[in-house]
Amino acid sequence: MARVSQQDAADIIATAHELADAAREATLLHFRRTDLTADTKEAERFDPVTVADRLSEERMRAILARRRPQDGILGEEFGTTEGTSGLTWVLDPIDGTRGYLSGTPTWGVLISVRDATGPVYGLIDQPYIRERFEGGLGRAEVNGPSGRSPLRCRPPRALSEAILFSTFPEVGTQAEGDAFRRVVPNVRLTRYGTDCYGYALIAAGMIDLVIEAGLQAYDVQAPIAVIEAAGGIMTDWQGNPCHDGGQVLAAANRDIHAAALALLKG
Amino acid sequence: MARVSQQDAADIIATAHELADAAREATLLHFRRTDLTADTKEAERFDPVTVADRLSEERMRAILARRRPQDGILGEEFGTTEGTSGLTWVLDPIDGTRGYLSGTPTWGVLISVRDATGPVYGLIDQPYIRERFEGGLGRAEVNGPSGRSPLRCRPPRALSEAILFSTFPEVGTQAEGDAFRRVVPNVRLTRYGTDCYGYALIAAGMIDLVIEAGLQAYDVQAPIAVIEAAGGIMTDWQGNPCHDGGQVLAAANRDIHAAALALLKG
Repeated sequence: MARVSQQDAADIIATAHELADAAREATLLHFRRTDLTADTKEAERFDPVTVADRLSEERMRAILARRRPQDGILGEEFGTTEGTSGLTWVLDPIDGTRGYLSGTPTWGVLISVRDATGPVYGLIDQPYIRERFEGGLGRAEVNGPSGRSPLRCRPPRALSEAILFSTFPEVGTQAEGDAFRRVVPNVRLTRYGTDCYGYALIAAGMIDLVIEAGLQAYDVQAPIAVIEAAGGIMTDWQGNPCHDGGQVLAAANRDIHAAALALLKG
Repeated sequence: MARVSQQDAADIIATAHELADAAREATLLHFRRTDLTADTKEAERFDPVTVADRLSEERMRAILARRRPQDGILGEEFGTTEGTSGLTWVLDPIDGTRGYLSGTPTWGVLISVRDATGPVYGLIDQPYIRERFEGGLGRAEVNGPSGRSPLRCRPPRALSEAILFSTFPEVGTQAEGDAFRRVVPNVRLTRYGTDCYGYALIAAGMIDLVIEAGLQAYDVQAPIAVIEAAGGIMTDWQGNPCHDGGQVLAAANRDIHAAALALLKG
């Protein structure tokens, strides 16, 4: 594990917030801009998600080139840049592009820093709400329209009392969907359509579980850091580390994680 | 139709905003208050949704008793109060109680005014985002974290290019769900979990269709007013008025409405 000094931790956190501010501005430039799609011919040439996605990642990479040239970068849009520090910034400039395209307030910007063992710090930003969830390097906090609050996952409760979120009711392949549907009838409430916001709601102590499949490394690393800093746990469907993506089971605590894992395994 | 003078229209709009301000404050008092549920015994006695729902409607009714005693009231929590003006305020203090309970930012406060023919003015407020969509009596506007913008529904496009929203993938009874699933494979994208926010996104020009079933009068009247003021259309699954609730097809324009209606009818 790359050692992160206290001084470097402060710089990492400050850099992450500078990235998130830049990404917030870039993504909002094109969010809900209906005037850009009113002309059908122009709309065919212009894909607001692609433009915003690229602009957001470009601006973040420019900040990292200036502030943290020693670190590596893994970005959704522009791939991998090697570093020398042992730390890598993992960037998803718009997680939930279909939500972005539809105008919902549940897509987000995902920013995290990882070493060889996994994420050490992460941040989930919802630009339209102006709401930011962060965790790791001593932080576990949300700062949004109602001010700042500490993040703390829910205490254990029976699976029959749990709230489960997932973005799509289909959840991955047929076999993955079947595993997901073994959990659904055993929880109190299942909701869909939240993109990365569901992970933030675990960290905020509002829900118990998020189950998804087919994810990428840049989809999961910021949520892992935020949820673990708030006392939760996030693994694959075998209970192993999931920081490379794939199948994900995020849980508010070890008890509810174990209960859902048993059903996913079948 | 009860005549609404220009002066009365201004008072109705001002009153609606006063109600929405009061409901915003009341609902946020208990939203995401995890400290209230950390003690399991206390949590069993305290249902934040019920408390917030009732407080929100009580405060709105107190304002109406003072400002508009001549009007009737139909509220989700406290039923019907008769009036003498021919106008009735239709109030849903929290639309999307399961979303509220889960901490999502897509539940809302619904406020509308109707006469014998249907809603004449409506407002959809999302308290956490501080975002308000209003329509009717000459208004069609959203005021939120990115400022004020006019509301205007999307122009017609092929059904295969449409974005469809619904709160639950099941959508009502088995037969209603079957009808809904005749539409799904014919659109570009289907998303779930938005409660009243989906209707606001039609008015904001972001999506094309919302299809739901089993709704109440207080669920639909504000969305009807907002969507119609933005140029859209909202009917039941036979193309008839839906202001008493039941099955609802909300659409950005008449063309996309007709295309979805044909599939719902089977």
